[in-house]
Parts: sequence; C-alpha cells; structure tokens
Amino acid sequence: MTRNRFWRLDRHPEGNTDFSRFLSLCEEAPAPLDEGEVRIAAKWLSMDAGTRMWMSPRTDGYQPPLPLGAKMVGLVLGRISETRDAAFPVGTLVRGFGQWAEQAVVVPALAGLEAVDETVADPRQHFGALGMNAWTAYVGVKDVAAVKPGEWLAVSAAAGATGSLACQVGRNLGAKVVGIAGGAEKCRWLREELGVDMAIDYRSENVEARLAMCEGGIGAFFDNVGGPILDAVLPNMAHYGRVAICGMVAGYDNDASMPGPARFDQILMRRLRVEGFFIPDFLERGAEFAPVLREWLDEGKLMVRFDETQGIENVLVAYERMLTGKNIGKVVVRVG
Amino acid sequence: MTRNRFWRLDRHPEGNTDFSRFLSLCEEAPAPLDEGEVRIAAKWLSMDAGTRMWMSPRTDGYQPPLPLGAKMVGLVLGRISETRDAAFPVGTLVRGFGQWAEQAVVVPALAGLEAVDETVADPRQHFGALGMNAWTAYVGVKDVAAVKPGEWLAVSAAAGATGSLACQVGRNLGAKVVGIAGGAEKCRWLREELGVDMAIDYRSENVEARLAMCEGGIGAFFDNVGGPILDAVLPNMAHYGRVAICGMVAGYDNDASMPGPARFDQILMRRLRVEGFFIPDFLERGAEFAPVLREWLDEGKLMVRFDETQGIENVLVAYERMLTGKNIGKVVVRVG
Repeated sequence: MTRNRFWRLDRHPEGNTDFSRFLSLCEEAPAPLDEGEVRIAAKWLSMDAGTRMWMSPRTDGYQPPLPLGAKMVGLVLGRISETRDAAFPVGTLVRGFGQWAEQAVVVPALAGLEAVDETVADPRQHFGALGMNAWTAYVGVKDVAAVKPGEWLAVSAAAGATGSLACQVGRNLGAKVVGIAGGAEKCRWLREELGVDMAIDYRSENVEARLAMCEGGIGAFFDNVGGPILDAVLPNMAHYGRVAICGMVAGYDNDASMPGPARFDQILMRRLRVEGFFIPDFLERGAEFAPVLREWLDEGKLMVRFDETQGIENVLVAYERMLTGKNIGKVVVRVG
Repeated sequence: MTRNRFWRLDRHPEGNTDFSRFLSLCEEAPAPLDEGEVRIAAKWLSMDAGTRMWMSPRTDGYQPPLPLGAKMVGLVLGRISETRDAAFPVGTLVRGFGQWAEQAVVVPALAGLEAVDETVADPRQHFGALGMNAWTAYVGVKDVAAVKPGEWLAVSAAAGATGSLACQVGRNLGAKVVGIAGGAEKCRWLREELGVDMAIDYRSENVEARLAMCEGGIGAFFDNVGGPILDAVLPNMAHYGRVAICGMVAGYDNDASMPGPARFDQILMRRLRVEGFFIPDFLERGAEFAPVLREWLDEGKLMVRFDETQGIENVLVAYERMLTGKNIGKVVVRVG
C-alpha cells in the first residue's frame, strides 16, 4: 500500500497565521484496519473555521482539544479504498470527519460518515450546497435567526462559505439580504453574482451607518464573526430581532481575548434574542435539510464558488486563506 | 380641592444617587379633568428600576425619555377621587402608570389602569405578588428562561422585588434556585425565609467558583444586573441554557458605559440563548398570569417583604435605596 501523508498537530497554534510553526506534514506506512474501520482515499478536504477549535488547548470550547501529536481532523470527501464495515463497500463515495491526510481511517459511526449522491455533477457540492456549511446556513437562518419573509437579514463574513450560503438561504426564504464582507471584490460578487440587496465593505465603509439605511431595522442577523461587526449590527436590529451566533473567528484562540459586544445593552432595549448554535447538534435533522438544499441547487438557487488549492502539502496555505478571509466562497483542497 | 404635591424632572440624572440634584418636589392647584381622564388619590407609589430609563436622555432605550419639566412617571395604587371615564367610578381601587404625586391624573387606557381586587388582605400586594414585578418574574422564569423542573435557576439581585419573586416562581415550578445578592443579611433572608437552595453573597464570595458547585450547570439565569455577575454566570451555564435579560441597572444612564459580558464567547461554546424582555410587551397576557400568582399568594408560596417609606417628600430616598440595592424586597412609598 502507498505511504500516507498527513498533517500532525505538534503545538497549539497562536492566532490564525503561521500554522507551519504548529503543524507538520508527516508520512507513514498505513496500519492495518481494525474491525469496524474503513479507509478512505481522500479526493478533497474541506477547510472549516470550526476545526480551529480542535487545535486550541481550550477545554471549555464546543469541541475538546485534539491531543498534541495527533493527526489533524477535518471533513473529507473520497472513496472507500478498504473496508471492515459491510455498510461501506469499497468504491463508495463518502463524506465525514476524517483526517487531513491522503488516506483517512475512521469508524463510520464516530465520523458521521455518509455515502453521498453520485449523481451530483460537481462532487465538491457535498462540501458546498449540500454540505455542512449549507446545513449551518439553513438551520441558522431558518430556525435560529427565524427570518421572516420581507424583513432584513444581515450576514457577516458574507463572502465566506457559510455566509454566502446564508445570504442565499435568506433570499430563498423571502428576506431582503445585506451582506457584510471585507473588500470591494467580495462586495461586487455578493451584489452581482449572489444578488444580495445590499453589500457593505467593512474595510472602507461605516457599517453601522449603512445598516441604519435598512428600513424597519435588521430582523435577523447571522453572525460568523463577533467583535466590532456585532457591535455595529446590534443598535440596528429591529425590536424582537434574532441573532444567530454561528462563529466568532476572532475568539477561538484565547478565552480572554474577545470582549463582549459594546452594545450588549441593546439586547434588553430592543428585546433581542441571541442564540449560539453548532451544526453537529442538528446532524440528525439532515433528512429534513438535504432535500430542500438539493432542490435549490438543482434550480440554480444555491451558487457555490469554490476556492480550490492543489495538493496535501498546501493544506496550511488554504487553511490560513480561509481563516484570514482571503477567500471568496468555499475553500477546499484537492488531494487525490 | 387640596393642593397636589408632585416630583418634577428638572435635569437628566447621572448615576443612581443624589437624585435631589435632578428632581424637585413641587406643588400645584389641581387642574380640572379633561374628558376621559380620571384623578387618583394615591395611597402607595411603587419604586421600580425600570423607571430610571424615563429620566435618561437616551432615545434608544425601551422607553422614550420624559421631557424635562414633566412630572415623574411611575406606578400608582390608589382610589379614583374624580372621574370623567364611566368605567372607573369614584372610589374604585386602581393601579396603573401615573405620576410621583399625591394626586395622579391619567387617561385609563394610556396608563394601563386596572381596577384591582379589594379582597386582597394587604393592598400593597398589587405592587408585590400580584404586581408588575411578579408578572416580570413569572414571564422571565417560565417563558423567557424556560426553566425546567430539577434544573438550576440562578437569579441576580435576588433579594430585590423582582429577584425575590423570580426565586419563588422558579421554586414553585420545580427548579433548584441559587440567588445572588449583596450582603449577608440578604443571603440569610433568601435562605431562611424564601428557601432558596443556595445563596451567594457577591460582596464576600467568589460567585464564579460557587456557581461551579451547581451540579449539571445553570440551566436558566434570570438576570437583573448585567456586568460582572453575568460574566461569572456565563461560564457556569449548562449547554443549551437560557438567559433572560430583565435588567441592567448599571447601564441605564450611559449607552457607552456598559461593556458586554467578558465571556460572551460562551454563548457559542455552550449554545446559549440570551433574550431581553420587557414586561409591558406582555401586559395583554395578564389574564393568564394573574390567577396563578393569586393562587400562589393564597397558598403562601409567594412571600413579599415590603420596604415601606412614609411620605411623598421621601420618594427620592426610597428610590435611591432601591436603585443602589440597599433594600430587601419591594420598595414602596406610602403617600396617602
């Protein structure tokens, strides 16, 4: 069997750059499978901000820390190359939590492994319109932020994978959408390709002042970021507005680095509901989301732009692009 | 007709003390009633933290500011002494939003004026177990914080009017209750008279460390305070816990003075729901709350300790006692 290259977590990272100081690319002779395990020949790896938590030593996060010396964990799309689980025969196209490796070894039930639909033209859509980012967007916009037709939905990190899908879920559910993103190119893409009603470039525009132009206020806010963007949105929320807290990119590293929103008082003044959510809590509802997302994809109502990097040796480059917001759309790495 | 003494708002207060610099006691010859108005001979005035907002120039609060030179507004309990509304005959015992005055003049519909039950032994209970504080406690604990039997409910400002009722509502609904209050006497009262399961003196104890002893975490938090107490509670919340934001005493004055909770990230990490609420939004549900509260009162399950001050000239003393937490229980002023 060919040797397996994988990324190993050597030290806990600080910040969202220079990951090569903390992880290293290793190579091993694959070990034989244990009963119940499968081996996956990875085709693509998904780069997700949520996995940053696994690298952290924080024990109070939503994921326990990964032990130092372990293979880094992440979502994998590939084909079963060897199996000791009869439910997953060799050749099956699968998606689940594996490793940043050319060959992932998992116990299907523990990895949330699923056989995915081979009829989807671009298999990367299993990381896109049909993947975890889309499930997150759907649950966050529809259930947690409980958007209503005709009201304004604001989305931060709107040009990212989850954000761009959240914009489209909101639009598909009848909301007016304002996307907040960094840079003119992202804003142009949001307006011209995704058709948002308003795009705000937080690098060059006054977010709070522009949001004040959303008539009736922001009914629902899908927040991937926290920090100053949240500060700008809260005083522009409509009374009884809902804020879905999906991510706090700035805060994964250090439990003390991230102060709460300066305008926290608005939660009382405007009687807001602010709720954190985490898609693994909703995985069992997949049968409910998947058909809706598939229909929207087939109808051209969920566009995903892929930001693809080639080669497992370039995973850290892609990961840093995603965490620092240099990407537009969904960041994936082609490894097979 | 006898002259009417009332408190006039001369300037916007700063802080929660020295109100005599900002309000003055005035006297007037009562004006004739307009059509639809009633005059109330006040017996008691209710001292409520929420009225602090009316004194502020903030236009983004949950209440618009009261114009300078106006009579200060607050809850009044008294008898109709003159009427131009046939639904409120002279002699009716009523409660509603009137003025800090010996004689309040209101339009019943605008004042939320209600005739109250004469058979309640202590009429002050219309400001106590049957009043706005009790409605707030009931809605906040049962609906917003959605407390479940057997889980821990934490309450801040637990020895105050709303807090002490929130503790009892939680206990009556089957929760274990931890009350957080300032000072040994308040904590003794919470334990010995109200029967809370745990009382924490935030002045002399480490709130975060003591809350960590609540097995299973805090399922529901009824917060009257914000600030450092909220910081101590958030990392002790159970996953999927609910925080009902009822008040932020520290933040009524200055929209920039109150930073958000230092542990805001816990909203994501623990998937918490944080929701602001404001009892005037729920007044129409009074018919649902009132019978439950009356039954609990009659069964001895809602105890209210009154902190009563005599005389309209002493309103500011009582108000400051309440805002600075020197009271135990419900602060009222006897004016008639």
